[in-house]
Amino acid sequence: MLIVQKFGGSSLANAERMRHVAGIIADAYIEGHDIVAVLSAQGDTTDDLLKKAHELNKKPSRRELDVLLSTGEQQAVALMAMTLEEMGLPVVSLTGRQIGVLTNTSYGMARIMRVDTQRLRLELDKRRIVIAAGFQGYDRNEDITTLGRGGSDATAVALAAVLHADKCQIYTDVDGVYTADPNRVTNAIKLNEITYDEMLELASLGAQVLMNRSVELAKRYGVILEVLSSRERKSGTKVKEVCRKVEEMKISGIAKDNDVARIAVVGVPDEPGIAFRVFNTMARSKINVDIILQSYGKDGTNDISFTVPLDDAENAAEVLAELGEAIGFDHISVDKNVSKVSIVGAGMMTASGIAALMFEALYDAKINIQMISTSEIKVSVLIERSLADLAVQAIHNKFFG
Amino acid sequence: MLIVQKFGGSSLANAERMRHVAGIIADAYIEGHDIVAVLSAQGDTTDDLLKKAHELNKKPSRRELDVLLSTGEQQAVALMAMTLEEMGLPVVSLTGRQIGVLTNTSYGMARIMRVDTQRLRLELDKRRIVIAAGFQGYDRNEDITTLGRGGSDATAVALAAVLHADKCQIYTDVDGVYTADPNRVTNAIKLNEITYDEMLELASLGAQVLMNRSVELAKRYGVILEVLSSRERKSGTKVKEVCRKVEEMKISGIAKDNDVARIAVVGVPDEPGIAFRVFNTMARSKINVDIILQSYGKDGTNDISFTVPLDDAENAAEVLAELGEAIGFDHISVDKNVSKVSIVGAGMMTASGIAALMFEALYDAKINIQMISTSEIKVSVLIERSLADLAVQAIHNKFFG
Repeated sequence: MLIVQKFGGSSLANAERMRHVAGIIADAYIEGHDIVAVLSAQGDTTDDLLKKAHELNKKPSRRELDVLLSTGEQQAVALMAMTLEEMGLPVVSLTGRQIGVLTNTSYGMARIMRVDTQRLRLELDKRRIVIAAGFQGYDRNEDITTLGRGGSDATAVALAAVLHADKCQIYTDVDGVYTADPNRVTNAIKLNEITYDEMLELASLGAQVLMNRSVELAKRYGVILEVLSSRERKSGTKVKEVCRKVEEMKISGIAKDNDVARIAVVGVPDEPGIAFRVFNTMARSKINVDIILQSYGKDGTNDISFTVPLDDAENAAEVLAELGEAIGFDHISVDKNVSKVSIVGAGMMTASGIAALMFEALYDAKINIQMISTSEIKVSVLIERSLADLAVQAIHNKFFG
Repeated sequence: MLIVQKFGGSSLANAERMRHVAGIIADAYIEGHDIVAVLSAQGDTTDDLLKKAHELNKKPSRRELDVLLSTGEQQAVALMAMTLEEMGLPVVSLTGRQIGVLTNTSYGMARIMRVDTQRLRLELDKRRIVIAAGFQGYDRNEDITTLGRGGSDATAVALAAVLHADKCQIYTDVDGVYTADPNRVTNAIKLNEITYDEMLELASLGAQVLMNRSVELAKRYGVILEVLSSRERKSGTKVKEVCRKVEEMKISGIAKDNDVARIAVVGVPDEPGIAFRVFNTMARSKINVDIILQSYGKDGTNDISFTVPLDDAENAAEVLAELGEAIGFDHISVDKNVSKVSIVGAGMMTASGIAALMFEALYDAKINIQMISTSEIKVSVLIERSLADLAVQAIHNKFFG
């Protein structure tokens, strides 16, 4: 088998953990597999480098930041290669340039355009373990670029795709994907398998095991992902196109998202085109709108409520206030004291009663639902933030109790 | 003018020094010059990285060491570029790969084969300050290489050569080349100019302002070097082919070298071919022999004395002991308690009495001369190490007092 493995910074934070990860890589190699291990920068390296940069320039250019930050992964891969050399194994470290990750020129958040596998193939043909720098690439000008948040996962998935790897293992601090956050929900169950779409919903809903970007990439190229622990040797969660569901499992997971605020535009005139103008204004300000609710107010006016990312709440209120003078409405209210709680499961909507079961759980727990949104594979509700953990536990008990 | 500037690690050790160096670069740019600044890794970066490596592998491969160590210069150039950005200047940092330094594949001590100036020219044509990573290159396999000791100086001289720069400024902790070590000899005089050959002799004799390698490279390509201080703004010493000498300056400098040991092979039979076998043995063991003295002992045997680098002394004695069984001699003595003191000056041998003046100074100071060696531009004597500083001062007084 050809396996791409990815290890994050906290798994590489010191010499002891480096040796532990080297052990994982070595075991897979010795079992007879071809291994490409993609690494992030060790522990706090990136933060330390950013601190150094900001001492000299409050707002350095993204190009130079990429030159600086890419050294973090380069150091990590060299050190890991040395660790495997010490074990007597054939190994070679490669930078983003050397693994042929060609990106666009968007420094700091570059997108992968192409991966030239020639060098990778050459090294794998020699039966060498390849330790590849994640997070980084180069552009058509031969400048160094970095891929932004979740970049190392994206590198791993991209390499797995172009090399037609049998699987792409993402080693993390958690040992898989759970039906709910295991730190907060008692009896949370680890899933053996989950579909790409379910994983995408869970990730976007605040269960940050994998970044959406790498799951989307994996889905597009049919790369089988496996999320597992870099600390304990046990099976993790596979992310793939179609999953065999355990019969009684009606949903795959429950997620809580605190990165949300509710904006209410109160007393909007009941005229055509008003909603369009509100949401067009949001789009122009590059603010993502999620759940939307239009309700009929008294005396011929309406209320339009919707959710936005927490950081965008003030900005949203400001641009709406300007719009208010043009279209006329009563006032705008911003509620940052909310959470979005969601259940996720492929084919949920074809099974009847799933949403009702969720609402029942919330009703039993005396939790008021402010807004509801549904899709093919999820049902989300907006509730008061202080009740969110209680809500997740109540829903979990209802479905898995 | 096109000026290549080179700054060593201690000149870049912290944010304050980085800003100071940025000021030197900025001033030259603002005066209207095209600037390529070559940097080493900051302060202790290289040592820190080596420590990390040795935690994981006592003897890592040179290839992986180069991948690791080259991040030091990459960080330095990015941070310097950011510092100049903060001053509002147009600047770009480039790695060894990007400045096109193609080397052979001798990791850790690679030699520059070719420099592809395309990218450099492109950036200079845009009137950008180029901050280039010293010490590093890439080989024909696209692997990262480093140039070994004095590598950043070599990078600077090579860039100055291929770009036909008007001069190559080497910024260091000292403000030029002196007639003797200014920390030890009172009244040491800073030279305005010195020839490549004189500089080569001084460097090889332990006055380590510049590594021989970069001086040789500069001589070969006619690159005018200038050694100056990165701390104080004042003129330094120019190193070039021909120098105007101040009339009364009979020599250019006095150097002391403690990295030397004296080996004496005592009681060698007075037969042809013995000296050849002794020195052939040294050559095969890759031990450089410097001063040689053959003296006639009593009862038809000879003594052969010569100097070797201090670190090679034990090895030299060992391989000679093996040889001893074959050719027969009385014994070998190793004296590590010696120093080589030399006077250096172009055309010295055509001026009469220079060597005599040196010997007179030593005689006056009651210092015994163990061995003597002369060349076109230098006279060296071997003396007891504890008297070396005294000897240098005495000679300096004689010539410059």
